[in-house]
Amino acid sequence: MSVVLESGNEYLLTVRNGDNFSTHRGNIRHSDIYGKDFGETLYTSQGMRAYILPPGIVENIFFMERKTQIVYPKDMGFILLMLDVKEGDSIIDVGLGSGSMCGALARFVGEKGKIYGYERREKFVEVASSNLETWGLRDRVDIRCKDIIDGFDIYNVDALFLDVPSPWEYIKVSWDALKGGGRLGIVSPTAGKVMQTLQELNTHSFIQVQVWENLFREFKPIPTSFRPFDRMIAHTTYMIFARKVCK
Amino acid sequence: MSVVLESGNEYLLTVRNGDNFSTHRGNIRHSDIYGKDFGETLYTSQGMRAYILPPGIVENIFFMERKTQIVYPKDMGFILLMLDVKEGDSIIDVGLGSGSMCGALARFVGEKGKIYGYERREKFVEVASSNLETWGLRDRVDIRCKDIIDGFDIYNVDALFLDVPSPWEYIKVSWDALKGGGRLGIVSPTAGKVMQTLQELNTHSFIQVQVWENLFREFKPIPTSFRPFDRMIAHTTYMIFARKVCK
Amino acid sequence: MSVVLESGNEYLLTVRNGDNFSTHRGNIRHSDIYGKDFGETLYTSQGMRAYILPPGIVENIFFMERKTQIVYPKDMGFILLMLDVKEGDSIIDVGLGSGSMCGALARFVGEKGKIYGYERREKFVEVASSNLETWGLRDRVDIRCKDIIDGFDIYNVDALFLDVPSPWEYIKVSWDALKGGGRLGIVSPTAGKVMQTLQELNTHSFIQVQVWENLFREFKPIPTSFRPFDRMIAHTTYMIFARKVCK
Amino acid sequence: MSVVLESGNEYLLTVRNGDNFSTHRGNIRHSDIYGKDFGETLYTSQGMRAYILPPGIVENIFFMERKTQIVYPKDMGFILLMLDVKEGDSIIDVGLGSGSMCGALARFVGEKGKIYGYERREKFVEVASSNLETWGLRDRVDIRCKDIIDGFDIYNVDALFLDVPSPWEYIKVSWDALKGGGRLGIVSPTAGKVMQTLQELNTHSFIQVQVWENLFREFKPIPTSFRPFDRMIAHTTYMIFARKVCK
Repeated sequence: MSVVLESGNEYLLTVRNGDNFSTHRGNIRHSDIYGKDFGETLYTSQGMRAYILPPGIVENIFFMERKTQIVYPKDMGFILLMLDVKEGDSIIDVGLGSGSMCGALARFVGEKGKIYGYERREKFVEVASSNLETWGLRDRVDIRCKDIIDGFDIYNVDALFLDVPSPWEYIKVSWDALKGGGRLGIVSPTAGKVMQTLQELNTHSFIQVQVWENLFREFKPIPTSFRPFDRMIAHTTYMIFARKVCK
Repeated sequence: MSVVLESGNEYLLTVRNGDNFSTHRGNIRHSDIYGKDFGETLYTSQGMRAYILPPGIVENIFFMERKTQIVYPKDMGFILLMLDVKEGDSIIDVGLGSGSMCGALARFVGEKGKIYGYERREKFVEVASSNLETWGLRDRVDIRCKDIIDGFDIYNVDALFLDVPSPWEYIKVSWDALKGGGRLGIVSPTAGKVMQTLQELNTHSFIQVQVWENLFREFKPIPTSFRPFDRMIAHTTYMIFARKVCK
Repeated sequence: MSVVLESGNEYLLTVRNGDNFSTHRGNIRHSDIYGKDFGETLYTSQGMRAYILPPGIVENIFFMERKTQIVYPKDMGFILLMLDVKEGDSIIDVGLGSGSMCGALARFVGEKGKIYGYERREKFVEVASSNLETWGLRDRVDIRCKDIIDGFDIYNVDALFLDVPSPWEYIKVSWDALKGGGRLGIVSPTAGKVMQTLQELNTHSFIQVQVWENLFREFKPIPTSFRPFDRMIAHTTYMIFARKVCK
Repeated sequence: MSVVLESGNEYLLTVRNGDNFSTHRGNIRHSDIYGKDFGETLYTSQGMRAYILPPGIVENIFFMERKTQIVYPKDMGFILLMLDVKEGDSIIDVGLGSGSMCGALARFVGEKGKIYGYERREKFVEVASSNLETWGLRDRVDIRCKDIIDGFDIYNVDALFLDVPSPWEYIKVSWDALKGGGRLGIVSPTAGKVMQTLQELNTHSFIQVQVWENLFREFKPIPTSFRPFDRMIAHTTYMIFARKVCK
């Protein structure tokens, strides 16, 4: 669960009896937390008001053990829709990284869905696996530590998500793995890589190829000085989408 | 199912034996469609290649009977994450309109989830109801034709989404309906309305108030002339998010 | 001079005695215009209020005879600053097109400045020449109808602006023409062309290479419904800037 | 003049015989600079290549003594065009701050133009005055240390620029000071202030009211990894423009 101080700071904590939890504005005794409902008020030893709240998907992404560039919530929501993720889908996720996108996919395919997660770097297999465990989604994901340059061992998937340094090398094997009408999503940060990937998509049977990027602006939530914040994230990635058709 | 022509045009169709389906590039006989798998190739009477594909959530939004301003996919994905929508949630959706956001919520709460949809205009109750029926999600939504200015008859919901002309009038009743830590999402198109809503949020026990807007840019998916399209949607809505804490 | 109707429509007109000027909301007699000061009120034959105003640089751009893609005001202002245009400068402008950028440069170098305008397509030499004449700036511009692939016949210029389909082919000759510390500005619409141009800039002695693009959003100027307009121009061009140093 | 190191760092310097100029990558002897032309190569005591370049308007803005929020180049260029600034104009500039906008106006009205700069805070009169002196533009600006809430003592100006905390209080006096058809430009950072100003513009005889903001994105100028920089300036100000007509 997470502790949110009135100052706006947020902490993730695990409740263990007897411990104290320290914030930059004083301690909270774990024993004070027992019996509190979500949203109820606590006070730190310095008298600052605090709340206990359940962390959600966005908080989990930012709290998780991160060792890589992540897929940001601003991109993630759009990708989930464009891949048409739904209950019971089976989806391949290539390039697990810290597992945030994999967790989002696993969550939205539901109990009956299945994610096949490919990652060739062993240390990320561990990071992603541990994060998925934390979120209670580990059992929906079949993690495979291998490079998929030579193809997947799974076929007929509803969707496939590629987050790898050279996506153009994986277009053919992605086509092979998708079912007819299946949806491919790719993230890639530079214009050159997108161009190379588009070229490859054109030589296989993919239609409805689209490329998007988005700019999210946050505003000062103060009525009398409502305006965008001074600075913003300008670029995370380009997003490429396409659907498989038969040759 | 949908028919996508090689020209890029997409049509929604219902397969009924004996009929022909006409496109701007020739007819397709329904009998030609039987037995085809998704992604397989057909030809129109004018010889244009066509594909049969299952429509997904994004296609459904743009194909549906629309009588109102809709929540666009670019906003919808982010809202779903910020409201932390997940299997089994119960969520209140106020201002159904054509039902696209309601459908998205219904889809992502899964079979065990429940949406309570409020709409005071009878004609939109009908439109939304019919669209939800089409998407196979009608039974997850409890539609109530009433204004909720005096409060909901449901409490302890995980999240609440407000798409109404004067959201500031519904902040108190939204607080009442949410569970502790529950998430409130609001869309509103003008700066003045956002400012009025922020003012009202400040006088109730909501924390982590955020305001966002986003700009989505689509690119020409052509490797040799990769560039953003000339024109884009500049503004759909501001999005306000907040979490309920106890007084 | 221009006529602006209360409806917001704007017309460019030349006052000639005896004529009538027709708008979509009625006629204006030229004789009514004589003796009026700028900003004074007239009425059309249909009784709509109208004003006589002097057109400025922005109005001139949108009113001019246009046969090409133009440099938009949103880009033009930034380019003028980044090229450090000032009184007395001599500047080369390659690819005159309709002459809008040339006119802006000519205007801001003042009476003592000089623009050398290169354009290889005869018909654009005529269009640009005629537009510059209209704006009273023709005598500050030395127009040369030739391709400059083999070099300029002018050297030691303060700044050089390239608006051509393949800017990378002109980097060497641009370096030759600029004075030490001189500023190069390039517009190019696609990512691939920018990348090719950057590559070429790297092989010559240019420093402080920058690439920019901008998004301008216009808002509804109505206090009670202040919000961005629904749609906007998403992309006109990328802008590349660099300064010459000695080898 | 400015020194630009190969590392990209830029320094402003005044050449005085006998001194050394120190950079974070070694010293440069002033005597080494004498006799060098702009763009020629020097070396620091640590052997890093350096160039001597003339600073331009953009460099001057970022190098100047700054004590306030400035008008950024991205906004400045557009404002200069929208105010139709040209040789010989007389322009009122209200709220000098550090004088960057005043300097830009002074530069583009040329030798025959005149700027009337109003600033009620004495310390900014000094800062602006000193900066204008540095840029060689002090004699084109008539600086007046007064609040103009009760009106200007100058009339019939071509354009007027307002950079003050409460622009709506100055609309009437701005109308009085402008000539017919004259152009008003206003910068204001928050939505509420813009709305208040629009309301006031509506009650006076101003037409063609426009509100703009812009987003400038800088790109990595590296051909093989061409992409927007990760972060950007999201908001500096809204810009309001309008033209005076007679009542």
